[in-house]
Amino acid sequence: MPELPDKREAFIDWYLAVVELSELTDKRYPVKGMNVWTPYGFLARRRLDRVMEEEIEATGSRPVEFPALIPETEFAKEKEHIKGFDAQVYWVTRGGTTPLDVPLVLRPTSETAMYPIFALWVRSHQDLPLNVYQIVNTFRYETKTTRPFLRVREIHFFEEHTCQLDEARASERVASNLAAFGRMAARFQLPYLAIRRPDWDKFPGAFYSVALDIPVGGARTLQIGSIHHYRENFSQPYGIRYEDPTGESKFVHQTTFGLSERLLGAIVAVHGDTRGVAFPVDIAPYQVVVVPVPSAKGGDPTPFARELGEELRRGGVRVHLDDRADRPGAKYYYWESRGLPLRLEVGPREAEAKTASAVSRLGDRRTISRAELVPGVRSALAAYDDALGAKARSAFAEAFSLANTLEELKGSTTVRLISWCGTPECGHRIEEAIDGALLGTLEGAPPIPLPAPGPCVACSRTESTVWSAAGRPL
Amino acid sequence: MPELPDKREAFIDWYLAVVELSELTDKRYPVKGMNVWTPYGFLARRRLDRVMEEEIEATGSRPVEFPALIPETEFAKEKEHIKGFDAQVYWVTRGGTTPLDVPLVLRPTSETAMYPIFALWVRSHQDLPLNVYQIVNTFRYETKTTRPFLRVREIHFFEEHTCQLDEARASERVASNLAAFGRMAARFQLPYLAIRRPDWDKFPGAFYSVALDIPVGGARTLQIGSIHHYRENFSQPYGIRYEDPTGESKFVHQTTFGLSERLLGAIVAVHGDTRGVAFPVDIAPYQVVVVPVPSAKGGDPTPFARELGEELRRGGVRVHLDDRADRPGAKYYYWESRGLPLRLEVGPREAEAKTASAVSRLGDRRTISRAELVPGVRSALAAYDDALGAKARSAFAEAFSLANTLEELKGSTTVRLISWCGTPECGHRIEEAIDGALLGTLEGAPPIPLPAPGPCVACSRTESTVWSAAGRPL
Repeated sequence: MPELPDKREAFIDWYLAVVELSELTDKRYPVKGMNVWTPYGFLARRRLDRVMEEEIEATGSRPVEFPALIPETEFAKEKEHIKGFDAQVYWVTRGGTTPLDVPLVLRPTSETAMYPIFALWVRSHQDLPLNVYQIVNTFRYETKTTRPFLRVREIHFFEEHTCQLDEARASERVASNLAAFGRMAARFQLPYLAIRRPDWDKFPGAFYSVALDIPVGGARTLQIGSIHHYRENFSQPYGIRYEDPTGESKFVHQTTFGLSERLLGAIVAVHGDTRGVAFPVDIAPYQVVVVPVPSAKGGDPTPFARELGEELRRGGVRVHLDDRADRPGAKYYYWESRGLPLRLEVGPREAEAKTASAVSRLGDRRTISRAELVPGVRSALAAYDDALGAKARSAFAEAFSLANTLEELKGSTTVRLISWCGTPECGHRIEEAIDGALLGTLEGAPPIPLPAPGPCVACSRTESTVWSAAGRPL
Repeated sequence: MPELPDKREAFIDWYLAVVELSELTDKRYPVKGMNVWTPYGFLARRRLDRVMEEEIEATGSRPVEFPALIPETEFAKEKEHIKGFDAQVYWVTRGGTTPLDVPLVLRPTSETAMYPIFALWVRSHQDLPLNVYQIVNTFRYETKTTRPFLRVREIHFFEEHTCQLDEARASERVASNLAAFGRMAARFQLPYLAIRRPDWDKFPGAFYSVALDIPVGGARTLQIGSIHHYRENFSQPYGIRYEDPTGESKFVHQTTFGLSERLLGAIVAVHGDTRGVAFPVDIAPYQVVVVPVPSAKGGDPTPFARELGEELRRGGVRVHLDDRADRPGAKYYYWESRGLPLRLEVGPREAEAKTASAVSRLGDRRTISRAELVPGVRSALAAYDDALGAKARSAFAEAFSLANTLEELKGSTTVRLISWCGTPECGHRIEEAIDGALLGTLEGAPPIPLPAPGPCVACSRTESTVWSAAGRPL
C-alpha cells in the first residue's frame, strides 16, 4: 500500500493522492478539467444530491430545470454579471455546419437563463414567493490549475433562485438558506463558517454575498457554497415585477443559494486521513461492506455473509458483499482507502456463532449478533458518524486563532479572526499582511471562544462590533 | 374549460394542447426546441428517472457520468457515426474570448466520450462485462419542427453502454435490456413493440438496432427507445481490447440501450384523453391530491383533510393538499387535466363520518374510511393503474391490422403487419406503398392474433418466417 503525502505539510499533494486512491473520479478524460464520474464517485454524488434535494424541498423549494444554453442577448442584460463571467464562458457558435445567428453561452450559472422566464411566471403578489432550484452541470473555462471536485470546468451545481416581495422577505430567505445548509452540513459532519464577503469580493451583480467556508489546513480556506441577496439588481434588467394588493407594480427582490461538487471535495479534505477517504454515513456510496473470511481449516462463511447482506438490504442499509477472490487484508485496505463506514468480517467462527465482527473506518471494533443485526449495524454506524463529526469539530477549532495586529497576521499558520472597521482601505492592508484575503464578517458566533471584538487590526481607530476572518483561499 | 382537439382526428394538435394545459413544460424559453422543465414536469421526469435507475441497476448496471463536451479528434474516430451526426451537433469553438485549439462537440450521445476511457478501464477478461449507464442531457441541432418531449434540442437521455466478451454475450445483453425495458414499460402501463430495424435504418455505426415503438393513432408510430448491438464497430477504432484467459488480445463486443424524455411524451400520448394527461401511479408527480370541500352550512373540513394528507405521506404515498381558496370544481378540473391518479374529496360530512370520497382520474368513485386510509388508497391506486393499463392495451390492439398486398398498404389507417422477404428492394416498395417506413421485423409475438407469416407482400416469392411492421413514424 502506497504511503500518502502528509496532510498537514502538503495538503494538495495529499488531497490529489487520496482522490486518486479512492477512484471517485477518472482524470484521464481528454479535456483538461473535465473528469469522469466513476460508478463509486457517482454513487457518492447521488447521495449528496439527495441530501440537498431533501433539505431544500423541506423549505418549500421546488425542483425545475432550465436549458443549458443561453442566448448572448439574454446573457448580456445585467452588466456587472456579464463582466464577471465574460472571460470564463464557453461559446457555442455553430450548429451542424452553419454558424448560429445568435451565439449561445453554456451556462456558467443560470440567472440569465431563468430570469426572462421568471418575468412571465410572476404576475401578482400571490405568485410570491417563487422558490425554485435545480441541480445541473455548469461550465467555466477555468484558466487556473484544475483540481478534481475543487476547480473543474464542468461543475455539478446546485442553484436555488427565489423571488420575494421585498428586501426584508429576501433577507429572511437568506436566513432560511443558511439554516438549510446547517442541516445539510450536519448530515455531512462538516463544520463551517458563514461569512459575509466584503463588497469587493461579492458575486457579480449581488447586493451582498454570504459565503460558506471551511478551513483546509494552515491559513487555507475553501469556499464550499454561497448565498446571495440580489435586491432588485436582476429583477430590473429582466423586468420581474408584480402587482401588489393595491395595484402598484413593483420589482421583486431576489436571492440565490449555490452549492457544488466542491462539497464532495470538502468531505474528502475534512474527513480523509493517512489511509484515504472517510465518508459520513449519509453520503457513503455503501454504508457497510460484508467480507467473507474463509479459513484454511474449512467452512465457507460466504452463504452466511450473503444472508447478512440480504437482511441489511431489506433493513434499508446500503450494503455491498465483497466476495472477490482477493485476500481479506487486501479487501480491508481497499474499502478503508475508499472511506466505507463499516465492514463486517464474517469467518467460519462467526458463521457458527451467528455473529459478525464489525470494524468501523475509525477502527472501532464490536461484535454484532445475527439476531440484532440491523439495529446493531445502525448503532455502530451512528457511533462512527458521531466520532467522525467530533474529530472534524476538534480539527475545526484548531484551525483558527486570534490576531490583534497586522504584524501578527504575517506568516499565519491558521485562519485568523480579527477586528476590522469595515473600510476597503483597512481591508486591503489586512489582505496584504496575511498575503491572502479578508474573508469577511462572521454571520453568527466565532468558531472558538473569543472576547468581544475591539479596535480595527489595521487602523486601530474604529471599534468593530463583529468578528471578521482572514485567510488564504485555495 | 377549453375544448381539446380530437385525439384521433388531430393527434398532434391534441398532444400540443394537452402538454400546454398540463404545465409540464414552458415553451417560451428564447431558444427554439429548448424548453423549461416546470416544477410539475420535473417531478414527473424525476419519477421516470428513478424507475429507469431501479430497473437497470437491478441488472447489475452501474451509474457513471462522462463530460458533456467531446474533442473533435475523438468524435471523428468512427466514420459511420460521425457521418450520422455531423449535421446535427452543436460546436463549442470559443472559451472566454479566445478560440479553442480543438473545437468541442456538445454530446449528441456518448459513445465517443466514453470509449477512449473504456479502453483504459478494460484490460482483462476479468474486467468484463462492463455495464454502465448515465442519465444526462444531450444536444442535437434539430432542423425539423420541434415538439415538447418528442423532438427537442436539449434531450434528457438515458444511455447504457456495455462491453462484453464476445458477440453472443452482447446478444444476451440486448435480451437483458429488452427484459429490463419490459419491466419499465409495465410500470408506465405502456404497451409497445420491439422491432429490429432494417439495415438502412439502424443507428450510425451499429451492427443491428432494435427499436421500441408505440402506435400513436392512424398509421403513426413513435420510437421511444432503442437497443443496439455494435459488435466490434466501435471497439476497433477506440482500441477497447482485453486479454483472454489464454493471453490472446481481443476486441470487446459492445451494446447500448437508449431512452429519453420521449417516454414522458409517450405517457402523455397513450394515456391522455379528452380531459388532459393521465399519469400511471408510478410516474405521477403526486399520486393523491386531498381537496377540502367547505360547506355553506359550516364546518371546516381542512384540519381533517390535512390529517389524511399527513397519514398518507407517512404511509409513503406522494400526496398534495390543495387548500387554495378556489372552488372545489375548479380544483377537480385542474388536477384531472394534470393527470393526477386519485383525489380525495373531504367535506364536513366526510370529516364527521371519518371517511373520504375517492375519485380516480378514470372516474371510479369509492368511499375510504379513515381507519383503512393507506390500504384503501393503495387499493384504489392499484385499481386505477390496472384500468389505465387495460385501456392502453385495448387501444394498442386496435392500432394494428394485417395487410396481404402492397395495394392494401395504401392509405393505411392503422400500423400494418406484413410478411417481408428481407430484401432492401421489397422494403423500399413497401415504404412507397404505405408512404412511410418499413419499421422492421418483430422481436417476439405480434400485437394481435395472426396466422403464420406468408409470402412477401411485395415480391410474393420468398416466404417470411417473422412478421414485419410498416407505418408512418412521427
